[in-house]
Amino acid sequence: MRYELYYWPGIQGRGEYVRLALEDCGAGYADVARSDRGMAAMMKMMEAGAGTPPFAPPFLKAGRLVIGQTANILLYLGSRHGLAPKPEACRLWVHQLQLTIADFVLEIHDTHHPLGPSLYYEDQRAPAKKRTGEFWNQRVPKYLGYFERLRQGTGGSYLTGRRVSYADLSLFQIVEGLRYAFPKRMKAFERSIPGVVELHDRVADRPNIRAYLASDRRIAFNEDGIFRHYPALDLE
Amino acid sequence: MRYELYYWPGIQGRGEYVRLALEDCGAGYADVARSDRGMAAMMKMMEAGAGTPPFAPPFLKAGRLVIGQTANILLYLGSRHGLAPKPEACRLWVHQLQLTIADFVLEIHDTHHPLGPSLYYEDQRAPAKKRTGEFWNQRVPKYLGYFERLRQGTGGSYLTGRRVSYADLSLFQIVEGLRYAFPKRMKAFERSIPGVVELHDRVADRPNIRAYLASDRRIAFNEDGIFRHYPALDLE
Repeated sequence: MRYELYYWPGIQGRGEYVRLALEDCGAGYADVARSDRGMAAMMKMMEAGAGTPPFAPPFLKAGRLVIGQTANILLYLGSRHGLAPKPEACRLWVHQLQLTIADFVLEIHDTHHPLGPSLYYEDQRAPAKKRTGEFWNQRVPKYLGYFERLRQGTGGSYLTGRRVSYADLSLFQIVEGLRYAFPKRMKAFERSIPGVVELHDRVADRPNIRAYLASDRRIAFNEDGIFRHYPALDLE
Repeated sequence: MRYELYYWPGIQGRGEYVRLALEDCGAGYADVARSDRGMAAMMKMMEAGAGTPPFAPPFLKAGRLVIGQTANILLYLGSRHGLAPKPEACRLWVHQLQLTIADFVLEIHDTHHPLGPSLYYEDQRAPAKKRTGEFWNQRVPKYLGYFERLRQGTGGSYLTGRRVSYADLSLFQIVEGLRYAFPKRMKAFERSIPGVVELHDRVADRPNIRAYLASDRRIAFNEDGIFRHYPALDLE
């Protein structure tokens, strides 16, 4: 089956967690909104009056099924493409990790949009600076410290042991994104999370991921996405 | 099986979505952190060095399984207690709705904590007022308008048709909470979401929910939770 991914065409955003999973397992997919008339098709699916219209991108069309919410899409893909263990307890655990990453992603977004997603960054520079300070003092150590503990606790190479899961791919993206958005802060912080950094490197070195990152299917980070490089928010 | 729910003892918070599901289906459970030495037990489970420690409350102990993240707990309970349809497509749909509600809950929390969860409301009154205005202008119509459309689109009494799901119970809680936190704004807004209000009333009238709401197991709303009544953030 050839999947159809629907996501905003100009950014990595939340769609990227789905792209990384599709790419790693070698599934065929079309990145619909990046093609001609793709945006119109995406908007039409969200505006559907009946059925099960998604609230927002990303969503994935798998045959007749349309699945929305990033973590939900990964739950679906994980069990079909070997990106999550089979037993229920393990599947729930990987999903739990993904939902924790999703919470972190929202907090990352809020560093540049503390007053809400409907205003421009330029209209909230001072609150953004304040929130970013709190984020790096309190939240990054809490979230990444948690994943570091898990990484140290497992005997294997990945969060859940020897085999990769979609949560590992997402954690890779978190490290990539924080390096892009806050290069100075992240450089200083990485010393305290060697296990997470090693996991990042291991994911980056997976053949399908390496090929993807070198391709034009990987959209470059930019200041419309979730991870934005605003020098005023990094260390002086 | 008697479940053990672990959540902060003084607030409804995210634990409430789990409580509503447990109560509606009549499952036996202990609200552990509200009992003697319960808080210590909860903290100990989060600090576990190995295994699958949750990142934050709520989490549910079901036999030997410990499940974290509200939506993940509901995914687990839903399939066991008739609070979600059985077919995979339907299960994913209800979970997708729950994840959209979870995003909304985070935005509700941010109305009084735009500069982050680690500062007091009293230290962010002005940004909170700004964010709350945007929230009611842009986000509430978007989220609740979406659920209203779904409610109108289905022929049945609930979001997914004739049978209740955990997403309906959560949407009930959203209406309850917004009424508590922003009584004037919500009163004005409810005219535009008659289907959601009707669904709320239908949930409130379910025998197990009615009994629960009248019991002392239901913690009262207060200004430590997610829904906080700060008159400065409501309409003048």
